Amino acid sequence: MNDVLLRALAGEPTPYTPVWFMRQAGRYQAEYRRLRERYTLPEIVREPELAARVTLLPVQNLGVDAAILFADLTTPLPGMGVAVELVEGKGPVIGQPIRSRDDLGRLRPLEPERDVPFVLEAIRLLKKELDVPLIAFAGAPFTLASYLVEGGASRRYLEVKRFLYHDPEGFARLLERLAEGMAAYLKAQAAAGADVLMVFDSWVGQLTRRDYRRHALPATRRLFAELEATGRPTLYFGTGAMHLLELMHQAGPRALGIDAATPLAWARERLGATPVQGNLDPAYLFAPKPRLLAEVDAILEENMGRPGHVFNLGHGILPGTPEAQVRAVVERVHERTGA
Amino acid sequence: MNDVLLRALAGEPTPYTPVWFMRQAGRYQAEYRRLRERYTLPEIVREPELAARVTLLPVQNLGVDAAILFADLTTPLPGMGVAVELVEGKGPVIGQPIRSRDDLGRLRPLEPERDVPFVLEAIRLLKKELDVPLIAFAGAPFTLASYLVEGGASRRYLEVKRFLYHDPEGFARLLERLAEGMAAYLKAQAAAGADVLMVFDSWVGQLTRRDYRRHALPATRRLFAELEATGRPTLYFGTGAMHLLELMHQAGPRALGIDAATPLAWARERLGATPVQGNLDPAYLFAPKPRLLAEVDAILEENMGRPGHVFNLGHGILPGTPEAQVRAVVERVHERTGA
Repeated sequence: MNDVLLRALAGEPTPYTPVWFMRQAGRYQAEYRRLRERYTLPEIVREPELAARVTLLPVQNLGVDAAILFADLTTPLPGMGVAVELVEGKGPVIGQPIRSRDDLGRLRPLEPERDVPFVLEAIRLLKKELDVPLIAFAGAPFTLASYLVEGGASRRYLEVKRFLYHDPEGFARLLERLAEGMAAYLKAQAAAGADVLMVFDSWVGQLTRRDYRRHALPATRRLFAELEATGRPTLYFGTGAMHLLELMHQAGPRALGIDAATPLAWARERLGATPVQGNLDPAYLFAPKPRLLAEVDAILEENMGRPGHVFNLGHGILPGTPEAQVRAVVERVHERTGA
Repeated sequence: MNDVLLRALAGEPTPYTPVWFMRQAGRYQAEYRRLRERYTLPEIVREPELAARVTLLPVQNLGVDAAILFADLTTPLPGMGVAVELVEGKGPVIGQPIRSRDDLGRLRPLEPERDVPFVLEAIRLLKKELDVPLIAFAGAPFTLASYLVEGGASRRYLEVKRFLYHDPEGFARLLERLAEGMAAYLKAQAAAGADVLMVFDSWVGQLTRRDYRRHALPATRRLFAELEATGRPTLYFGTGAMHLLELMHQAGPRALGIDAATPLAWARERLGATPVQGNLDPAYLFAPKPRLLAEVDAILEENMGRPGHVFNLGHGILPGTPEAQVRAVVERVHERTGA
């Protein structure tokens, strides 16, 4: 078992810097595209054999140090009573958004064995095959609330802000319900065998520090506190969230993922011994190879050999990314850091 | 003449904190919407009487301490040989994007009196009417290059990054041409009577610090150096750009505008005596009035009474913003800071 990721997430010295990529399984891979000719995205996510097969692709083809279960932030939402439709080119769409506290009655607690058995089964299958740690993930309360209130991806997040300005208590209740649901979801995934629990706060960068502290931090802190019982390392990632780094740290994850804009050296200074994951701009995977590798080196230099660094992108892999470039990054990171 | 803005931009003490709003003239105003029933956006921009009338609306209705000429970042581009179409709900679209150095031949130097006489005429008209300073603006080289390369607004900025990774010298030449064009544009506006020159780098937050320093800083610095000759105070604003604040300062503007995510107190600490403009989240204009005013107060408290603060939003006013809320912010800022 390759436990380099787990040791890095514990802040321990490792024989080399572990590397994996957000969205490392997906459309940019030829094998995934072939599979998608026969199955829809929800079919893959809900069929454990298929989800496991897709999860394994980057481990087999790229030599990464971790697998991340193939699923979507919205995967557990139908189990909580929210119908989600995946619209090609548009992402998840929620037909009946939650716009006030009266709508909270439509949410029900998540019961993972009843609501997401396919996720747990995929994890059990994967644990028999994998020789690297398996990461399970969920959306953070604020980001999931944004989906629920906006009805899908948003440009200005005006509805979710309107809700929290006008009914902070109702909004807090919504976030609590989501924190409880995601705690149950991640705990069940840990019990099924997931080694690392990651929380994605993709849209949290929309909040000012004041608003994060008041509206997002309490429920997020509760989520991480609940996850302590699993004994699994936790990872918390936000985008456009440089201004929130210290507050996200206060939420209590074991490690923090940073976006491409947040300077890695700056983050490490501010977080002390807390491990940091990141942060190559995914657009660099389209650069000429020498420039790509120089950027990888620059990020490693920012880390200055400190333990507790997990190499990753600052955002998910973009469609159309050349697979050979992704492989070149894995090799470079391993080679430069001692493997 | 109300010169409070000019004194704040000079870092001098002022009788109260000056306030104006990005996109303070526009669709959220009933009078503007009435005008738009009869004229298209390009008609308003290209007709000096109309542009001046729209520019005056917020000064008359809101009591702000500055006017900003009603125009678009792409207004000078046709003069440089780039055809721009304004598409409703989509923004400016450039039919023939610039994708390589070979396309640079299509760009020609801007000659303001020939290419944008309507802008200069609007400024001359406004100077007869206004009793507050008039701000003229232009796009920063990187942001304009993004428009030219992407062909319009973008989500991932992959084409512009591809260009700069693959042909850094060609990209530098593109930015130089744009810096020269915008220097000519802003100088002509200063000569026509504009009191303050503002440079918008709306998309610069997409760049890492390393890439900003290498690809955007040189041309931006040249632009601000050219503007020195006008004697007018200069303002430089970027969005999603907290990580770039110190580098944008190095570009040489007299003052910096910050987005809503960048903590004002943090910015002021890092910038010393350099004046700072910002940074209320425009979504707050949809909050209940007490909450809106509490947020205004919190921003003023972050400034701690230091001279060199211009109150503004962290982004442009959103469509649908209630005008009364905008007025309430002006009153609160003036009242709380001594007027």
